[in-house]
Amino acid sequence: MIRATVWNEFAHERENAVVGGIYPDGIHATIAAALAQDEGIEAATATLDQPEHGLSQARLDDTDVLLWWGHKLHGAVDDAVVERVVGRVHQGMGLIVLHSGHFSKPFIRLMGAPCSLRWREAGERERLWAINRAHPIVQGVGPAIELENSEMYGEPFLVPEPMETLFISWYEGGEVFRSGLTYQRGAGRIFFFSPGHETYPIYHQPAIQTVLRNAVRWACNPGPAWVDVGDAPNVPYDKAPERLTPKGGSLHGAGEEGYR
Amino acid sequence: MIRATVWNEFAHERENAVVGGIYPDGIHATIAAALAQDEGIEAATATLDQPEHGLSQARLDDTDVLLWWGHKLHGAVDDAVVERVVGRVHQGMGLIVLHSGHFSKPFIRLMGAPCSLRWREAGERERLWAINRAHPIVQGVGPAIELENSEMYGEPFLVPEPMETLFISWYEGGEVFRSGLTYQRGAGRIFFFSPGHETYPIYHQPAIQTVLRNAVRWACNPGPAWVDVGDAPNVPYDKAPERLTPKGGSLHGAGEEGYR
Amino acid sequence: MIRATVWNEFAHERENAVVGGIYPDGIHATIAAALAQDEGIEAATATLDQPEHGLSQARLDDTDVLLWWGHKLHGAVDDAVVERVVGRVHQGMGLIVLHSGHFSKPFIRLMGAPCSLRWREAGERERLWAINRAHPIVQGVGPAIELENSEMYGEPFLVPEPMETLFISWYEGGEVFRSGLTYQRGAGRIFFFSPGHETYPIYHQPAIQTVLRNAVRWACNPGPAWVDVGDAPNVPYDKAPERLTPKGGSLHGAGEEGYR
Amino acid sequence: MIRATVWNEFAHERENAVVGGIYPDGIHATIAAALAQDEGIEAATATLDQPEHGLSQARLDDTDVLLWWGHKLHGAVDDAVVERVVGRVHQGMGLIVLHSGHFSKPFIRLMGAPCSLRWREAGERERLWAINRAHPIVQGVGPAIELENSEMYGEPFLVPEPMETLFISWYEGGEVFRSGLTYQRGAGRIFFFSPGHETYPIYHQPAIQTVLRNAVRWACNPGPAWVDVGDAPNVPYDKAPERLTPKGGSLHGAGEEGYR
Repeated sequence: MIRATVWNEFAHERENAVVGGIYPDGIHATIAAALAQDEGIEAATATLDQPEHGLSQARLDDTDVLLWWGHKLHGAVDDAVVERVVGRVHQGMGLIVLHSGHFSKPFIRLMGAPCSLRWREAGERERLWAINRAHPIVQGVGPAIELENSEMYGEPFLVPEPMETLFISWYEGGEVFRSGLTYQRGAGRIFFFSPGHETYPIYHQPAIQTVLRNAVRWACNPGPAWVDVGDAPNVPYDKAPERLTPKGGSLHGAGEEGYR
Repeated sequence: MIRATVWNEFAHERENAVVGGIYPDGIHATIAAALAQDEGIEAATATLDQPEHGLSQARLDDTDVLLWWGHKLHGAVDDAVVERVVGRVHQGMGLIVLHSGHFSKPFIRLMGAPCSLRWREAGERERLWAINRAHPIVQGVGPAIELENSEMYGEPFLVPEPMETLFISWYEGGEVFRSGLTYQRGAGRIFFFSPGHETYPIYHQPAIQTVLRNAVRWACNPGPAWVDVGDAPNVPYDKAPERLTPKGGSLHGAGEEGYR
Repeated sequence: MIRATVWNEFAHERENAVVGGIYPDGIHATIAAALAQDEGIEAATATLDQPEHGLSQARLDDTDVLLWWGHKLHGAVDDAVVERVVGRVHQGMGLIVLHSGHFSKPFIRLMGAPCSLRWREAGERERLWAINRAHPIVQGVGPAIELENSEMYGEPFLVPEPMETLFISWYEGGEVFRSGLTYQRGAGRIFFFSPGHETYPIYHQPAIQTVLRNAVRWACNPGPAWVDVGDAPNVPYDKAPERLTPKGGSLHGAGEEGYR
Repeated sequence: MIRATVWNEFAHERENAVVGGIYPDGIHATIAAALAQDEGIEAATATLDQPEHGLSQARLDDTDVLLWWGHKLHGAVDDAVVERVVGRVHQGMGLIVLHSGHFSKPFIRLMGAPCSLRWREAGERERLWAINRAHPIVQGVGPAIELENSEMYGEPFLVPEPMETLFISWYEGGEVFRSGLTYQRGAGRIFFFSPGHETYPIYHQPAIQTVLRNAVRWACNPGPAWVDVGDAPNVPYDKAPERLTPKGGSLHGAGEEGYR
C-alpha cells in the first residue's frame, strides 16, 4: 500500500466563493479522494493551519509520496518544515508539486533555480500534449488532455533541464509551457505538474486524476529510506577497499569528523 | 575581458603550517595568479573575513565568473550573501565550485541535493580521466590528469545527474568519483571540480590550472545579466499574443500582482 | 509474467576451452537460468546460428525484454534483424546490452555514437560502485560489486550522456568506466551493463545476476506496443484541434502522404 | 574562420513554382548568404545531384559545421555518404539539421530514435518560444520568433531527451513542438531546428537567419578532429597506469586486436 499525503495551504477555498464552490472541502480532499480510487494508494491530507503544517517528522516518515498545493501563502510555510520535506525527498520520499507550487519553498529548494514563469488568468483553453507516451505517468490519458478553462503558465519556465519532459501545454492565448517534468534528487523522485488553478474544476477532471494516480505510483520508492543520505563518512585508510599506505600532509587526525 | 573573482574562506592557510607552506598567500592568490596567465581573464579575490565576505552586490554584479573554495567554515557564510550569489548565478554569473565546496551553502542551494560523498585523507594517488574530450573545459590536459597525492572523494556523490560528465577519478584506495560536472541554473553555468585538498600543492599543478582557465572561459556568459530572471510577470489578456476573450472565474483583479 | 529473451552469438563457448568450461551450455543458458529465479520472469534464449538468429518478428513481438551478448561476430548479424530489433525497442521492448555488446550493431544504431572504449584482458580486479543507490536496478547489491577477475573497459566511452549513471567501475590497472547506464529510445528502455568477459565466471556471480533480474523488471514496458511509433501522420486542417483556415502555398495535395 | 557547408537536396525549388519563386537559387544559396553576413563564417554549398552529393571525404574534412536540408529525396542519399557524415560528426564536425531533415538518414543514425512527428501544411501561424534565453543560439531573437505561415510539426516528436531544449513552438491549429534541441554525439555538437517549410519564405526571415548564424558558431568545435574516435585500442598490461600482473584466463594473444 502506497501512503500518499496531500498537502494544501487551504486558504482560497475558505475565502473565495468561486473556489469554495468548486472545492467545498478543499483541494486536498478532492485530490485525496481521486487517489483513493486506486486500491493500492492510501491517501491522507495535511494543511497549513495544522501544528507543524500537518507535516511532523513522524508524519513525513510515514509518507511515501507527498503532493503539494500552495499559492498565496508560500511565505507562511515554516522553514524548518521545508527542510524536513526536502530531507525526506533526499531520503526517498516522492514529491508531486502541483500548479502554483512552482514557487513553493520546497520546490525552489529542490530545483536550485528561480522556478519563475509568465501567467494569465483568463479562463483560456489549455491542451497538454503527451511527449513521452511510453512513460508510466502518461498511461491512460490519450495523446492530449484538454482543459476548457485554465490559467496560462508560459515559458520561459526557469527550472533545470528535466530528466524527462512528459507534457507540453498549448494555450489559446498563444503561449506554451512544459507542464509535466520529472527530476531525481537524492533517493527521491519529483514530478511537477502544472494544471490546477483553483477557480476552475481541474482536479475533478478524470484525465487529471489519472495522471495524479499514475504519478503517485511512479514517485513511490519501495525501498527503505536512505536515512544517512546527507552524511559524508570518512573511510579510514585501513578500511579502504585496496591496501593503502598513508602519505603526504594531513589536516584531520585519525577518526576525526569532516567539516560541513 | 572576463572578470573572475576567486573566493576563499582563507582559514587553513593561516592556521595550519603545512597548508600555509603550500599557499603562503592563500589558495585564492595561487588560483588568481593561475587565471591571470590567460590574457583574457582579469582575476580578483575575496575572502570570508572581509565585509560581506568581499561579495557585496556591486562586486558580484561586476563578476562574470565566481570561483568558490571553502571547507571548515561553510556555516560562517552569511545566508544573505549566499542568496546574493545564488541570485547572480540565476542572472548569468558563472560559478566554479572547488573541492570541499561540495558542502558549501551556494552549491547545496543550487543543486537542491544532499551533495554528500565519502572521503579519506591518505595522500593517495588520484587520476582524473577525461570523459568528454571534446569539451572546451577539457582542452590541453591530455587523456588524464594525475595527482600523486590527493584526498579521496568517493561515490555515491549525491548530486543531480549533470548536463555533462567531464572527469571521473580513479583512486589508489579503490574508489571512483565524478570529479568534473557541469550544470545550468537559470542563465548561469556551473562547473564542479573536485581536486584541491589544501595539504597537497594541487592548485600549483599546470594541468589543474589549465582546467580552471578553461572553466572560467566556459562559464562566462557574455550577454547582459538577466536581471528579472526570478520575476513571474502577468501577461494581461489584452496583451496575449493571440486574441483572447476572458472567461471563467477569476482570483486576481485586473493588473494585480501574482502571489509568491 | 515478463517475457525475456537472452540472445548470444554463442561462439567462444564452443571454440575456446576456458570459456566452454565456464559456460558449457553457453552464456545465454546461464543468464536465462539466473533470470528464471525470479518467478515473474519467463526466460527464453536465441542464438546467432538459428534461422533469423532466432529473432523472427514473431519472436520479437513476444519479447518484453531482450538481452544481448555478442563479441567476435558482430559483423555476422544480419542488418534486417538489426533493424527489427531497433524497431521493437522503439515500440517499447526493453533492451539490455551486455559487455562487448557495446560494439554490437543494435547498440550502435540506438546510440548514434561511436560506442568505442579502451580495453585490457589481464584478469584484474574491478569494483562497480553504485552511483544512484535508489534506482530499481541497483537494489540488493550493496554499495559496490567486486569482481576478482575482469576485463578492463576504460574511458572515454563514446556514448551519449545517459538518462542515469547507475554504476562506475574502478580497475586495478588504473582506469575507470561508466559500467551501468540507462537510456530511452522511442517507447523502449535500454540498460548497458559492462561486466561479462567470457573467460571469467562473471554471470555466475550472485550480485551480477541480481542486477540482471532487476534490469529486466525495470526495462519491461507493461503497456501495449506502440506499433506506429515511426509513422509521421498528416493531421488535415479540418481535423486540427483548433479551427483553422488553410492559407499560404502548398506542396502536398489533400490527403497526400508525407515524404520520408 | 568557421567553414560551414550548406547541404540541400535541391529538388522542390526546381520542380515547384511556389518554392522556386521563394528560393530561385535554392534554399542552400539563401542560407549560405545569410551565414556569410557573419564575417567569421565562410559558407559553401553542396547538393544531392553533385558527385558524392558534394560531400567527399575531403570536403567534409574541411567542414567545421554542416547544415542539412532534405525532404522528398531522403532515400536517394547514398549510405556511404551518410556514414561519412556521421563519422565526421563523431570526430567533431557540427551538424545543424533543418526542418524535414528530421527524417534524413544522418539525423536518424545519430539519434537512434524514430524521429517521427505529426504534420499539417495549412500555412498556420507558428510562434517559437525561447526556453533557455541564456543560450548562445538564442541570442538576439527576443522572447519569441513569430512565423506568419508555417507547416505544423506536432508532438510527440520521437527523439532522445535533448541536452538542452532551446525552443518550443505554438501552432495556431492547437499543437506544440520542441523546435530547437541540442545533442552531443562523440566530439560533435548537433542542433535540430524545425522551421523551414519550403513553400513559405522562412529562411528569409531575419530572426531565423540569426539563429542559424548563432548555431553555426555554437556547433563549431575549434579543436583538431578526433580522428580515431571510433577506435577501441588495447592497453597492454605493461602499459597500464598502475603496475599490474596478468592473471586469469585469456582470449586474446599479446598485442592482438579486439573484435568489432
